[in-house]
Amino acid sequence: MISQTAEYALRAVVFLAEMGGKGVTTEQIAQPTQIPAAYLSKVLQQLSRVGIVQSQRGLGGGFSLKIKTNKLSVLDVVNAVEPIKRITECPLGLDAHAYKLCALHRRLDEASELVERAFAQTTIADLMSNTKGKNVFTFPLSNKEGSRKPSQRRKS
Amino acid sequence: MISQTAEYALRAVVFLAEMGGKGVTTEQIAQPTQIPAAYLSKVLQQLSRVGIVQSQRGLGGGFSLKIKTNKLSVLDVVNAVEPIKRITECPLGLDAHAYKLCALHRRLDEASELVERAFAQTTIADLMSNTKGKNVFTFPLSNKEGSRKPSQRRKS
Repeated sequence: MISQTAEYALRAVVFLAEMGGKGVTTEQIAQPTQIPAAYLSKVLQQLSRVGIVQSQRGLGGGFSLKIKTNKLSVLDVVNAVEPIKRITECPLGLDAHAYKLCALHRRLDEASELVERAFAQTTIADLMSNTKGKNVFTFPLSNKEGSRKPSQRRKS
Repeated sequence: MISQTAEYALRAVVFLAEMGGKGVTTEQIAQPTQIPAAYLSKVLQQLSRVGIVQSQRGLGGGFSLKIKTNKLSVLDVVNAVEPIKRITECPLGLDAHAYKLCALHRRLDEASELVERAFAQTTIADLMSNTKGKNVFTFPLSNKEGSRKPSQRRKS
């Protein structure tokens, strides 16, 4: 549904959110989020360019979030690196569809709009509060979950 | 939002739907739908394999839809060539997320589910009836639309 780059950007932002303002290096982000370091550098550059993350040089420096997690939406992060493609013109270049998309492309664009809206309504804070105190990248197993057998592993 | 292959499959199916059961050749489909012929051949093969289209050899033969347009959903067509990816396991392979996706990946999967549901609820017949008598690939301009100036072309 979203690109690899967008997925990586979201992982990095969620990790930075969990760090609560503490500056972290690219290497420190790369390991737990499982993002290749060179790829991550580019993603962090893109996120810096639009003001989602900031970097501080020197001792105790590093990357941190620049925007409060309840003011930062999933869509902001996705759009910073690879905006969701909307269909605004007929992909076939048909004159008759220049004024109004055909039903096919209107429906396809509506699907993109659905996703865009869902992402706009979800903040990074939502992602964190939904984990009920458990961080995404630092994750103590609760006893209940820990006692489940591997065969009960979700495979829907 | 959907892959190029899925977009091509939908174009081909809508075109076949407009042909109303008349057998057409790959070449006859390729031109109006603007799908490269070799690519189209593969797509038609995939659609044949799952029983969405059928092909008849000989004079008057060719490809035609095998399923009624009001029984065939956009999701059926998309899934025949490139199913929408759902997230059923933690993409990071984290043990703690084996039982339950983290909030991030649950939200991403919910977006895929939204699209899947929208596509399941839309039939090929819907795509056709929405064009109000106008076909997608054979498209007489109404006077009203034809009289609009190019500057009014939709650019949202």
